[in-house]
Amino acid sequence: MTLKFGVIGTGAIGRDHIRRITDKLAGGKIVAVTDVNLESVKQAVEQYGLEAVVHEDDKSLCQDPNVDAVLVTSWGPAHEQNVLNAIEAGKYVFCEKPLATTAEGAMKIVQAEIAHGKKLVQVGFMRRYDSGYVQLKEAIDANEIGEPLMLRCVHRNPEVPESYGTEMAVVDTLVHELDVLHWLINDDYKSIQVMFPKKTARTHAGLKDPQLIILETKSGVIINVEVFVNCHYGYDIQCEVIGEDGVAYLPEPASVVTRKSAKLSKSIMTDWKDRFIAAYDVELQDFMDSIKKTGEPNGPTAWDGYIATATAAAGVKAQQSGQKEGVELGEKPAFYQKQAAAVN
Amino acid sequence: MTLKFGVIGTGAIGRDHIRRITDKLAGGKIVAVTDVNLESVKQAVEQYGLEAVVHEDDKSLCQDPNVDAVLVTSWGPAHEQNVLNAIEAGKYVFCEKPLATTAEGAMKIVQAEIAHGKKLVQVGFMRRYDSGYVQLKEAIDANEIGEPLMLRCVHRNPEVPESYGTEMAVVDTLVHELDVLHWLINDDYKSIQVMFPKKTARTHAGLKDPQLIILETKSGVIINVEVFVNCHYGYDIQCEVIGEDGVAYLPEPASVVTRKSAKLSKSIMTDWKDRFIAAYDVELQDFMDSIKKTGEPNGPTAWDGYIATATAAAGVKAQQSGQKEGVELGEKPAFYQKQAAAVN
Amino acid sequence: MTLKFGVIGTGAIGRDHIRRITDKLAGGKIVAVTDVNLESVKQAVEQYGLEAVVHEDDKSLCQDPNVDAVLVTSWGPAHEQNVLNAIEAGKYVFCEKPLATTAEGAMKIVQAEIAHGKKLVQVGFMRRYDSGYVQLKEAIDANEIGEPLMLRCVHRNPEVPESYGTEMAVVDTLVHELDVLHWLINDDYKSIQVMFPKKTARTHAGLKDPQLIILETKSGVIINVEVFVNCHYGYDIQCEVIGEDGVAYLPEPASVVTRKSAKLSKSIMTDWKDRFIAAYDVELQDFMDSIKKTGEPNGPTAWDGYIATATAAAGVKAQQSGQKEGVELGEKPAFYQKQAAAVN
Amino acid sequence: MTLKFGVIGTGAIGRDHIRRITDKLAGGKIVAVTDVNLESVKQAVEQYGLEAVVHEDDKSLCQDPNVDAVLVTSWGPAHEQNVLNAIEAGKYVFCEKPLATTAEGAMKIVQAEIAHGKKLVQVGFMRRYDSGYVQLKEAIDANEIGEPLMLRCVHRNPEVPESYGTEMAVVDTLVHELDVLHWLINDDYKSIQVMFPKKTARTHAGLKDPQLIILETKSGVIINVEVFVNCHYGYDIQCEVIGEDGVAYLPEPASVVTRKSAKLSKSIMTDWKDRFIAAYDVELQDFMDSIKKTGEPNGPTAWDGYIATATAAAGVKAQQSGQKEGVELGEKPAFYQKQAAAVN
Repeated sequence: MTLKFGVIGTGAIGRDHIRRITDKLAGGKIVAVTDVNLESVKQAVEQYGLEAVVHEDDKSLCQDPNVDAVLVTSWGPAHEQNVLNAIEAGKYVFCEKPLATTAEGAMKIVQAEIAHGKKLVQVGFMRRYDSGYVQLKEAIDANEIGEPLMLRCVHRNPEVPESYGTEMAVVDTLVHELDVLHWLINDDYKSIQVMFPKKTARTHAGLKDPQLIILETKSGVIINVEVFVNCHYGYDIQCEVIGEDGVAYLPEPASVVTRKSAKLSKSIMTDWKDRFIAAYDVELQDFMDSIKKTGEPNGPTAWDGYIATATAAAGVKAQQSGQKEGVELGEKPAFYQKQAAAVN
Repeated sequence: MTLKFGVIGTGAIGRDHIRRITDKLAGGKIVAVTDVNLESVKQAVEQYGLEAVVHEDDKSLCQDPNVDAVLVTSWGPAHEQNVLNAIEAGKYVFCEKPLATTAEGAMKIVQAEIAHGKKLVQVGFMRRYDSGYVQLKEAIDANEIGEPLMLRCVHRNPEVPESYGTEMAVVDTLVHELDVLHWLINDDYKSIQVMFPKKTARTHAGLKDPQLIILETKSGVIINVEVFVNCHYGYDIQCEVIGEDGVAYLPEPASVVTRKSAKLSKSIMTDWKDRFIAAYDVELQDFMDSIKKTGEPNGPTAWDGYIATATAAAGVKAQQSGQKEGVELGEKPAFYQKQAAAVN
Repeated sequence: MTLKFGVIGTGAIGRDHIRRITDKLAGGKIVAVTDVNLESVKQAVEQYGLEAVVHEDDKSLCQDPNVDAVLVTSWGPAHEQNVLNAIEAGKYVFCEKPLATTAEGAMKIVQAEIAHGKKLVQVGFMRRYDSGYVQLKEAIDANEIGEPLMLRCVHRNPEVPESYGTEMAVVDTLVHELDVLHWLINDDYKSIQVMFPKKTARTHAGLKDPQLIILETKSGVIINVEVFVNCHYGYDIQCEVIGEDGVAYLPEPASVVTRKSAKLSKSIMTDWKDRFIAAYDVELQDFMDSIKKTGEPNGPTAWDGYIATATAAAGVKAQQSGQKEGVELGEKPAFYQKQAAAVN
Repeated sequence: MTLKFGVIGTGAIGRDHIRRITDKLAGGKIVAVTDVNLESVKQAVEQYGLEAVVHEDDKSLCQDPNVDAVLVTSWGPAHEQNVLNAIEAGKYVFCEKPLATTAEGAMKIVQAEIAHGKKLVQVGFMRRYDSGYVQLKEAIDANEIGEPLMLRCVHRNPEVPESYGTEMAVVDTLVHELDVLHWLINDDYKSIQVMFPKKTARTHAGLKDPQLIILETKSGVIINVEVFVNCHYGYDIQCEVIGEDGVAYLPEPASVVTRKSAKLSKSIMTDWKDRFIAAYDVELQDFMDSIKKTGEPNGPTAWDGYIATATAAAGVKAQQSGQKEGVELGEKPAFYQKQAAAVN
């Protein structure tokens, strides 16, 4: 059985997923495409030799009876409507992050999906598919370090463009931690606070960098995450879980060690695209496989997308207030309980 | 375009490749199968829901006009004839190691392929596709450590069964190093010597364990490889290249680091099947992709298979004589020059 | 020239210093001893074969004309008066931490020393003499990581007795970081805040454990220190400085690495006494050497002792208030400027 | 009690030990000095403010009744006679390596010491006092890795002068491994073999570099040691013991780890003088302490000095013959049995 995809958005990320499904993974096929830029659509079709119908807009693509699943790789502000259209058409949908740009938008999707009565949506938080995070979660779940009490995380980029402002540290960068951390320790956020250490001279007026974010969970775990997007030296993701019996660390990516020029060293990546490159393959393969096997996707749900967006919004408020802000998510709907259990 | 495979041998390894092509990789399909055990064939067809013709024997399968490429996963002694049959039929062939059990047998395949006039054969030495070895080779090729002068390698298994004898340390275990090391440093073996250190109490009368193998290359590089197949603690593959400017190490597999019970530690694998699990996917995908793009496979050639088999034979002689034995491979045929260059 | 010591307090720490000066270091001699427990004094004299006058009390010992330097290893609450007596007698004094139990007490010593007109006092903060911290400071001072922006520190003990309460996490444990960190980055504390993560089940009602302390310096550096005194797995001190150009870590103590039982591991100490054992030797040798060479001790000053005590007091206030509390130290007296420069 | 030293040889190493005894260690004093260069003696006396008698020659110094122990830091060819003179005078003697330049010379000392009837001699092989080797030996002795089967060692220097020839790789460089390794595993050498890998372009006509030395012990352990004295990148000493149950490594020296410029790295030393700097202190302190406590030195004996010299001589023969050469040491005299047991 082949899962037939319609793609909304044929920019860089869209084409990357098209390439994956076409040349790398098993069991999927691109059968329909659309983009606000028609020239881009034509190029994508040609570049990958697709046998795909070109649709005028997302609505038409979602309604195409040949389409089983919709891949949303348009720009962020369009995601919400793209996903709602897919749900309305009863199609599976893999949506790149963010699920929506506002908590309200994400909640609309949650409600639409519940109303539809079957899980259709997976959000493209790929870290859950990274073998390092998977190993870390396995260690925690196997009780190797006892009950988690604290987490220390680091999200560093070598540099960002002028267009990257203070809010983006939370909304675009921290958001990956916001998704992966509550999954990792199976807990919920209660509050968020943001501190601004001494600014690096490498940043600009519109960006306070680095930032130190402190999250508290319902069970009392304190998580601190350093976001430092002009750290200069590399792209570096760290995660350390301090438990009652011990501490576990996200593995460093494997790399050649050298002894050279009076240094024992290994490389640190500099391009974020390399860091989770395998995880993108795994997440999309899992999306296809779990739909085939169980009838619904197995990855981050619409509810998870809502958590990330709503917590990020509280984080932006905390940046502005300088205070600890509550994260008010409401109760997790019963609809999403089963899947969460399955993942864990 | 889909590459249509015929599979000779539906035992454990055969099924593993069938699963890969069917459920994991892009661009291949199993269309024909055979095995000396018909029951095994039927199970495999059923297990993976194959739409495949069942052939009576390897000859018939190779001649099947629907088959583009033959996958040889029969038992070792059958490989030589399987591959010769595939070449005779003008089919691509992916052959699990060993290409043949004797140097003469491997040479027959080399000659048959040359006579055919086009490269068809890839041998299943998967380490060349391991991201660690690839990174190590890139470091060497980029001259990061200067000219290689020495190599130190380790091949340790936690334990082996009673049926594993002294020769197998060379023929079955060392053979992986024999393939990957000459590729790594782009050199040829000149001699091989085997030393027997103090035996571990964990071995049996028919197996001298550990063994220390010393290879010399034509350019004078000295390689020492420890083979220790009852090392008890884990499955551990190490490779260190000492160059004029520095030293480079094969990366350790990434794993969770913990601080626990007065130890800072990370896991070492215990099952060899886990160590190169990703490399098996990559090698088979590359086999398919390179045939589609260039008309011939890009991986270890029949000549490489001959090198491994002939050098292992010299190694067995060295085990028995206690002396340094010459490795006489003859000149590399021009037919294989181009590919070697491409790989490097 | 031999520096002649009078020792106030012949308990465990006192005897340890007596042993050092007598059997391990060059240039010092114990010539006088006193203790509130006369039996203890006699034992110490006998145990180390001391040719030392036994004094009735600290005052008498300080006044002994044969004494060049006083070693204060009495119990904490007595330190302040012991040191004041030594200063009054114009004697050098090496005082174990704390210099005094209150900020006011420490300030009295600072004022007495300034009034005396010459530096006499060194406080026993040994971490500044640990080769790891020294290397870390050298890296920072050499600008290897650029301007420090943040610090992340960890102070973990395997367990503490019932008598250890919440305040002690700051007053007894954190105090070592309070001394070493401002020295490390040559900055002053501005505020302190204490957070209480989820409690470990291994603690008791009177102790909130772990604690997360957040310090801000005058230049804006944010320091977070985890104090976790029932971490179970070992005694573990970590310090990481995040600068504009890179990150530097306090070295892990050197230890044998093993591959064993499916783990690649090294030992973590479990007894705090082992961790800085060499630093105790170095600090006391430096105390003697610098007095001989420059006429005054070179280590942590009375002002440094005051900083530690006053900041710890603010930390206790922060534990109780749950708020960020200001650290009000006043201006560093000119008297202490020169030495600070010399240390850096 | 103070141990009174007479020093033969006031060059760089002699002065270093004079400084140690005078300014750093407890319990020793320099009371006599001599050197073939009288100017050097005068400078040394002045530089360290010694209250020492200047002797005309080594014989006179050894006979000085005020001298308890003789420190031999003259040039190598003089050691043998210096030590014999000290033994004749019944004085303790600490002799820098080599004990003698020939096996016969070393044997003469052994016989003189046995004739004297009491252990007097300690040879300056400082590695046994390095905390890394000590920890490694403790791990082996505690049976943490089971019975040793193989060792892999590395001795790399960044560069050597033109005067350093092929033999020196064994006689001056390998000799440290020759001493420390038999002590480490409590075994004796049986044979030695030397291989010459591809030469580094950084060496000169008179020096084959690197060299690979293979030693076999009486119990069958195979030890390989790489000596590479123009390795360019640093001064690097490695030692790995492969046992029946696991592998143990000599610790890397502790150093600051940094994340910087796309590298996670730590420093490797470049100057050999830094590598064992602490061990020099410990060995000399132990020499003094053990004489005071037990009446004889506790470190490497004259017999150990003989082993190193005689094995190195066999190594030179192996360099020339290209063959495996036997190491014929004879039986260890009963006189040295007790001490060996004590060390282990």
